[in-house]
Amino acid sequence: MMENEALVHLSEQFGKLSGVGRKSALRMAYAVLAFSDEEAQEFADAILEAKQKIHLCPICQNLTDRDTCSICNDLDRDSSVICVVEDAKAVMALEKVREYRGLYHVLHGVISPINGITPDKLKLKELLPRLDGSVSEVIVATNPTVEGEATAMYIAKLVKPLGVRVTRLAYGVPVGADLEYADEVTLYRALEGRRDF
Amino acid sequence: MMENEALVHLSEQFGKLSGVGRKSALRMAYAVLAFSDEEAQEFADAILEAKQKIHLCPICQNLTDRDTCSICNDLDRDSSVICVVEDAKAVMALEKVREYRGLYHVLHGVISPINGITPDKLKLKELLPRLDGSVSEVIVATNPTVEGEATAMYIAKLVKPLGVRVTRLAYGVPVGADLEYADEVTLYRALEGRRDF
Repeated sequence: MMENEALVHLSEQFGKLSGVGRKSALRMAYAVLAFSDEEAQEFADAILEAKQKIHLCPICQNLTDRDTCSICNDLDRDSSVICVVEDAKAVMALEKVREYRGLYHVLHGVISPINGITPDKLKLKELLPRLDGSVSEVIVATNPTVEGEATAMYIAKLVKPLGVRVTRLAYGVPVGADLEYADEVTLYRALEGRRDF
Repeated sequence: MMENEALVHLSEQFGKLSGVGRKSALRMAYAVLAFSDEEAQEFADAILEAKQKIHLCPICQNLTDRDTCSICNDLDRDSSVICVVEDAKAVMALEKVREYRGLYHVLHGVISPINGITPDKLKLKELLPRLDGSVSEVIVATNPTVEGEATAMYIAKLVKPLGVRVTRLAYGVPVGADLEYADEVTLYRALEGRRDF
């Protein structure tokens, strides 16, 4: 048997997390070894507890540990607008702005045929039943990537025939950025979408 | 109770790992939620298993899952040279070179009074009994930082009176680097340590 196989195995577990490379994974495994037994137990328990308690909201498909999530449950929110996002992280980012008061719908991915992700793999079929006449606008807030754009167009084609207004987040230069470093496509979109003072 | 407290708690666990910031920790926690139940269980088990199986080698203080580590156990290695390093990662880095054939001694830290790390907090007292006459050289390979340097000098003062040769890794420009980007101290050390062709 290889020496310290348990360390290698642990670092492989960290390596499975998106965005964690081989070196970082090994560094994290070493860090765990420096934990006390109680801390290691707490870490292991936290993994299992999160997996066990958190599931998808049956309405918006966002992550929740309740029957339905706190946003869908909030009667003060405007249920006539649904913002469609790629993942739960996007919900968190938009909620931080404290400007949007409508509801969400989380797709859990974007259409990407090259990676085998077809529309039926997304939580799209759960969106249509929600457009029962009470919803007047769907804001498509998928990421400004090729896949995000394709997914947005797919959703627009699906939703528009139902007589629902479909909008897309504005493209443009990020606030605080330097024009010098903005890429050409972004600048083109910022010019195209210019507004009067 | 806050919604998705289990997610926040899990991301706090990731945040405890050195070099993992708040945003990365949250991303990792989200990644765990995308695991299958079996994968999450495997991750949790790997943490506990690594903690349980891996301990310090009673001779060199390196990490091992055996009674004594494979390097201390290897009779082909030169037991007259001990290379003193800060942590187990340094052993791994040096072993990759396949040039060094002596033994190691892992300090598990460096002297850093500002962080409350005094010499007695390191595995230094375990080094001295090893210098029983069979060891002719101690190579101090602590990191080239202020603390690493101070620790190296401390060890030199401790070991030299025992009649053991104490050496330090060479300073200089890293192979493949551009002089333009080397800092002044490194360049100074590289000039100072220049060698004849």
